Amino acid sequence: MDIIVLRTDATDEDIKHVVKKLESRGLRANVSHGTERTIIGVIGDTSKVTEEEEDAIRAVSGVENVVRILKPYKLASREFRKENTEISVRGVMVGGKKIPVMAGPCAVENKTVLTSIAEKVKAGGASFLRGGAFKPRTSPYAFQGLGEEGLKYLAEASARTGLPVVTEIMDPRDLEVIVKYSDIIQIGARNMQNFRLLLEVGSTQKPVLLKRGLSSTIKEWLMSAEYIMSRGNHQVMLCERGIRTFETATRNTLDLSAVPVLKQLTHLPVVVDPSHGVGKRDLVAPMAKAAVAAGADALLIEVHTNPEEAMSDGEQSLKPEQFERLMKELKPVAEAVGREM
Amino acid sequence: MDIIVLRTDATDEDIKHVVKKLESRGLRANVSHGTERTIIGVIGDTSKVTEEEEDAIRAVSGVENVVRILKPYKLASREFRKENTEISVRGVMVGGKKIPVMAGPCAVENKTVLTSIAEKVKAGGASFLRGGAFKPRTSPYAFQGLGEEGLKYLAEASARTGLPVVTEIMDPRDLEVIVKYSDIIQIGARNMQNFRLLLEVGSTQKPVLLKRGLSSTIKEWLMSAEYIMSRGNHQVMLCERGIRTFETATRNTLDLSAVPVLKQLTHLPVVVDPSHGVGKRDLVAPMAKAAVAAGADALLIEVHTNPEEAMSDGEQSLKPEQFERLMKELKPVAEAVGREM
Amino acid sequence: MDIIVLRTDATDEDIKHVVKKLESRGLRANVSHGTERTIIGVIGDTSKVTEEEEDAIRAVSGVENVVRILKPYKLASREFRKENTEISVRGVMVGGKKIPVMAGPCAVENKTVLTSIAEKVKAGGASFLRGGAFKPRTSPYAFQGLGEEGLKYLAEASARTGLPVVTEIMDPRDLEVIVKYSDIIQIGARNMQNFRLLLEVGSTQKPVLLKRGLSSTIKEWLMSAEYIMSRGNHQVMLCERGIRTFETATRNTLDLSAVPVLKQLTHLPVVVDPSHGVGKRDLVAPMAKAAVAAGADALLIEVHTNPEEAMSDGEQSLKPEQFERLMKELKPVAEAVGREM
Amino acid sequence: MDIIVLRTDATDEDIKHVVKKLESRGLRANVSHGTERTIIGVIGDTSKVTEEEEDAIRAVSGVENVVRILKPYKLASREFRKENTEISVRGVMVGGKKIPVMAGPCAVENKTVLTSIAEKVKAGGASFLRGGAFKPRTSPYAFQGLGEEGLKYLAEASARTGLPVVTEIMDPRDLEVIVKYSDIIQIGARNMQNFRLLLEVGSTQKPVLLKRGLSSTIKEWLMSAEYIMSRGNHQVMLCERGIRTFETATRNTLDLSAVPVLKQLTHLPVVVDPSHGVGKRDLVAPMAKAAVAAGADALLIEVHTNPEEAMSDGEQSLKPEQFERLMKELKPVAEAVGREM
Repeated sequence: MDIIVLRTDATDEDIKHVVKKLESRGLRANVSHGTERTIIGVIGDTSKVTEEEEDAIRAVSGVENVVRILKPYKLASREFRKENTEISVRGVMVGGKKIPVMAGPCAVENKTVLTSIAEKVKAGGASFLRGGAFKPRTSPYAFQGLGEEGLKYLAEASARTGLPVVTEIMDPRDLEVIVKYSDIIQIGARNMQNFRLLLEVGSTQKPVLLKRGLSSTIKEWLMSAEYIMSRGNHQVMLCERGIRTFETATRNTLDLSAVPVLKQLTHLPVVVDPSHGVGKRDLVAPMAKAAVAAGADALLIEVHTNPEEAMSDGEQSLKPEQFERLMKELKPVAEAVGREM
Repeated sequence: MDIIVLRTDATDEDIKHVVKKLESRGLRANVSHGTERTIIGVIGDTSKVTEEEEDAIRAVSGVENVVRILKPYKLASREFRKENTEISVRGVMVGGKKIPVMAGPCAVENKTVLTSIAEKVKAGGASFLRGGAFKPRTSPYAFQGLGEEGLKYLAEASARTGLPVVTEIMDPRDLEVIVKYSDIIQIGARNMQNFRLLLEVGSTQKPVLLKRGLSSTIKEWLMSAEYIMSRGNHQVMLCERGIRTFETATRNTLDLSAVPVLKQLTHLPVVVDPSHGVGKRDLVAPMAKAAVAAGADALLIEVHTNPEEAMSDGEQSLKPEQFERLMKELKPVAEAVGREM
Repeated sequence: MDIIVLRTDATDEDIKHVVKKLESRGLRANVSHGTERTIIGVIGDTSKVTEEEEDAIRAVSGVENVVRILKPYKLASREFRKENTEISVRGVMVGGKKIPVMAGPCAVENKTVLTSIAEKVKAGGASFLRGGAFKPRTSPYAFQGLGEEGLKYLAEASARTGLPVVTEIMDPRDLEVIVKYSDIIQIGARNMQNFRLLLEVGSTQKPVLLKRGLSSTIKEWLMSAEYIMSRGNHQVMLCERGIRTFETATRNTLDLSAVPVLKQLTHLPVVVDPSHGVGKRDLVAPMAKAAVAAGADALLIEVHTNPEEAMSDGEQSLKPEQFERLMKELKPVAEAVGREM
Repeated sequence: MDIIVLRTDATDEDIKHVVKKLESRGLRANVSHGTERTIIGVIGDTSKVTEEEEDAIRAVSGVENVVRILKPYKLASREFRKENTEISVRGVMVGGKKIPVMAGPCAVENKTVLTSIAEKVKAGGASFLRGGAFKPRTSPYAFQGLGEEGLKYLAEASARTGLPVVTEIMDPRDLEVIVKYSDIIQIGARNMQNFRLLLEVGSTQKPVLLKRGLSSTIKEWLMSAEYIMSRGNHQVMLCERGIRTFETATRNTLDLSAVPVLKQLTHLPVVVDPSHGVGKRDLVAPMAKAAVAAGADALLIEVHTNPEEAMSDGEQSLKPEQFERLMKELKPVAEAVGREM
C-alpha cells in the first residue's frame, strides 16, 4: 500500500481524507503534486497494513490506484529466510542437492494393485509413494476413493517398501486420520484457497505439499503457503501442476517458469508434477526432464501397473518400465545442472 | 463416451481390446473402418459410464480420442426438467418473472453498520440481505469475519427488515450454525469444487447459491450443481461472478454470455453478481443492467453505507443512494425484456 | 514511467545510475529512502518518455519495478478530449444518442445473395451494410473472399439501399481499392496489432472500425487506436468482439464490461459485435440487448438469408426475420437506458 | 467433419437435410439412431471438406455438434512426412542432432553496437545472428526500427562474422528487401495470423521462423505453417515464445509442453525463445536449459552488450558474458538428452 495515485479530478478534500486515514494507522504521507497526477508516498511500516485497509484507501473518492510495493507474504519470502528450506521426511530430504521422486497411482484402488505399484516404483528409484484415498472428482457419480481403508493400504505399502507416503486431504474432518497414516499431506489444486483447510494443516507438524490452483497466480500461491506457515508449520513444498489456459492440446499448461520465479521469491522447495501438467503419458518424460533442468527440487509422477484399468487418470500414468527408463534418463540431466537423482 | 477414435497405427488387437471393454460394461460397439481412422460408435445406455471408465478407454493403446456426446450431468440438465425451476425463499421467488435483488455488505462488520445497511437496501428495494460472517481472504493476516456472532447479527437484521439472508459457508463444520441463522447458503467461487462441502449442503433442504469458480467452465459448474442435487437438494441457483482472464482493467471478466448459455443447458435459476465481476463501483450499474437484459433471474449487489471504511471490498460497494438509483434504472430495463423488478 | 522501485539490495551506484538516466531525459528524480525499499518519483513531463526508455530504466541493475502512472496513449484518452466523439458516416452518426446497427453477411458470396441480404437488413432497420470481400481464414484451403469483385458488389448494394458499407482490410496493398468502395474500414481482430496497417488507415480520412484482438488488453487496444490517430485520422470506433479464455461453451467470451471501462478511458465510440462474441445464433439476441444496456454506441450483427449455405460463419448468422424481431426487441432496451434505436 | 451429432429434437427433415448436403459433396452418411442422440458418421475423403462447408453443416437446424477427426492441416503434419525436416541455412542445420543458437539484440540500433554484439555472440558460440530492423511496438511513439538501413548493418555483421541472419518482416511490401539481406525470415507473434504475409513468405524459398501468436493454439499455429507451405515453401521452423495467461510474474507463460506436442504432430523443427517467454534476464538461463531438455531443436536468445541502454527489451537481454556462460552450461544438458550444442 506504499504508493497512492490520485485521479486528475481529485480534490484537496480527497487528499486530506487519504492522509488522515494513513495517519490514523500510524503512517505518514509524502504528497507530491505532479502536473497531471498527485501521488502520495506512504512512509512507515506498511507491512502491517492489511488487505482491507488497502481496499479502504482504494475506496476513497479521488483515488485512482494503490500500488503495493512490499510483498503481502512474509514467512514464505526469500527475504525472511535467505537459505533454501530443506525438509526431512523420514530421512529423505526435499530441497537439497538430490532430487527425490514421488511416484505411485493417482488413486488407491485396492491392496494388491497398490502393493505391486509401490514395489515397482521403489525398484525404479522413487523416494516416496504417492496415492489418493480421498479423490476430488468433477462428477458425483465417479469413484471418490477408498477413504480410511485406502490410507491403511498406503501405510502397509509404506511399511513394506520403506517409502514415506504422500496423500491428499480434502476435508478438515479427515485431518486426524490422514496425519496418522501419512508422511506428507497434499493440498490439491482445487483446495489451494480452501483457507480453513490450510489453517488446519498449518496446525500440524506434518510436511505439506501445496499444489498450485488451476488459475492461481504465483503470488496467491505464496499467500496460501503463508496461511499454513502462519500457524507454525513451516514445512511447505510448492507443487506446480499446470495452469488453465486457452490451449487444449495438453490437459493443463505446465508453467515451468514458475520454478525459477519461485526460487527468487521464496526459500521453500519447489516440486513439479508433469503428469497432471500435461495429462498425456507420452509427454511426461520430456517435461520431467525439463522440470529438472529448470531447477525443480522434486518430481511427482503417476505410475500404474495397468493404466488401462486405472480408476483415475490412467491416460497420464506411466507404466513401471517407462518409469524406470525415465529415472535413468533423468540422471544425466540432473547432473548437467549440478544436482543428483 | 459415445464415440471412440483410434489412431492410424491402431492394431486389430487394440480394436478388440476396446470392444471387449465396452461389452464388459453392457454396451455394444459399432466399428467403422475409414480410410484414415477407425471409429467406434458406442451403442447402449452410456449415461451410466463413469468418468473413470471413460479414462480407462482413453488409456488403451491405439485410442486417439474419446468424444462424449451425452452431458455428464443429469439432474441439472434442461433435458431432465424442461420447465424453469423456481425457488421460493420465505415467500420470495427466485426464477420467476420478477427479478429479486440480494444486497448488502461484503462482510458483516458489526451490528450497527449491518442494521443500517439492511434498512437502507430494504428501502431501496432489495428482496434479500447478503453479508459474510465467514470470509475467504487471500491473506491470513486479513479480517476473516465475525463467525457465529456475525450470523446472529444477520438473523437480527433479517427479523427487523423481513429480508431473508444469504451467507457463505467455508467449512462443513459450520453447516449447522449456518443452516440455523440463514435462508440461502452461498458456496463461494473458491469452493465451487470443494466437493465435500457440496455434498454437505446437498444433504440439507436449504436453497444454495453456487458461485462459479474463477476459472471454471460452465460444464464444471453444472457438475458442481449436480453434486448438490445428487444428495437430494434440488434448490440450486447458479451465480456468475466473473472469470479470470488476462484482462486487468476489471477485477474479473464478467461472462454474461453464460446467462443465455445456462438458460439452454439447465432449468436452474441464474444469478449475476456484477460487484465481484467488475470490482469497481462505477461499473456496477451498467453491468447490472446488462445482466438483466441478458436474462438474469436475480442480482447480487454489494452495498455499504460507508464504503471507504468497509473492511472488505469497499472499492466495489455501492452507496445506498447509488443502490436506490440503480434499482429505479433497472425497472425499465427489466420491463423491456418482459420481466419485473 | 513515473515511479521507480528499487530492490532491497540496490546500491547507491544503482540509484545514481537511474537518476542520471532521468536527468539526461530532462526529468528530475525525487528519491525516498524507505525502511525496505528505495522509491524514486519522477518529476517532469513523463508523457514523452517512450516505452524503450522505460525498458532501459527497467534494465538497470537494482531496479525492481517501474510503475507508469500516466496512460501511454494520449489522443485516444478521455483526458485529451472530454466530450464523446461522434462520427458521421454519409449522414449516419455513430456515438450519438441513436444506436445504429451494422448488419450483413460475414463474407460477400455473390451479387444476388448480397443484394437480397442488403435489402432485408435495410427493411429490418439496419443503418450500415457489413460484409467481407477479403476474409482472414485460419485455413489456406478455405474461401478467402471475392476480393475487388466483392467490393464492387458491396458498393452496388450500397447504392441500391442507401446503406453505407463497412468492410475489412487485411493488406496495406488493398488500401486504395477499399477506400474507393467502402465507407468504414474495418481492422479485424487478428490485425489489431498489424502496426503497419494501422498507420496506413491512419493516413486516410475514412472512419475506421478497430476490432479488439483475441487476447488484447483494453490498454493495448487503445494503443492501436492511438497508432491510427497519430497519423491524423481521429475517426476511430472500437469494436468489442469477444476475447479468448478457457471457456469453450461460446466461441469467444464477450467482454461487455469493456464497454463502461472504455466509456471512462476514451472519447471514442464503442461498438459491440455479439455475433463473433458468442458464435451461436441463439445467443446473439440476448447479448445484443445486454450490449445496449451496458452502453454500446452501435452493434455489428451478422445476418444471412440462408445461414445453412453461408460460406463463412453461418452458425452465428441471424435469419432476416430473426434480425427484424431483434431490432424490435432492442427498441425498449435502448429507451430504458436513455438511447434510441 | 467426420462425425455429426444431432440434437434430441432434430427432425427426420433435419437428418435428410444433412445427408443431402454430404452427398452433394461426394460423401456418404452412416446414420445411427441412438436412444438419446442421432449420430451421422461421414464416409469418404473428408480431408477436402473446407472449414466453410463444416460451418454450413453446423448451421443446419437440429445439428448439435460437428466433430472433426482428421487434422485440418496436411503438409505440416507428421502423417504427411514421418521423418524430421532438417533445414540447412548457409551450411548450418536446424532440426538435426546439433542445437544451434540464434542470438543478438532485439532491435538493430546502430552499426557499432550491432557489430560488437555479433562478434560477442559468435565468440560465445551462436550459430545465427538475430536482430530486428522493422520492430512491432505497441506504441506509435516508440522506436520503430531502422528499416533498410538496419538490414544493411545486419548483412555487414553477417559478412564479418559468417553468421547467417534472422530478421522479422512486418509488411508484405518489405519482402524484397528482407529477402535480399537476410537468411531466415521471421514472422512475429502478432503477425502469426497475418495471412497475406504468410502467403507472401510462402512464395519465397527463404527459410521462415514462425513465432506462435500470443493466444494461438498449437492447431492454429500449424494452420499458419500450412499457409506458408501451401505456397511451396516447406522450410518452416516453429518458434514457441510464450503465451498470454493470467499470470503476471513473467512477461508471458513459456509453454514448453508445446515442444513434445509439436514433435508428435509435425515434422517441422521447433525453436524456443526463452527471452520473450519470460521477459526477465535472470530467468532466461534456467528456461533455456529446460527448453533443451524438453527437446527443442534450436534456441533464440536476446543478447546485448549494454542492456541498460538497449532501445528495446533490455530487461530480458543477456550480457555477452552471461550468454557465454549459458552456452557452456547448455552443453551437458544437450548431451544428457542425446543432442549436441
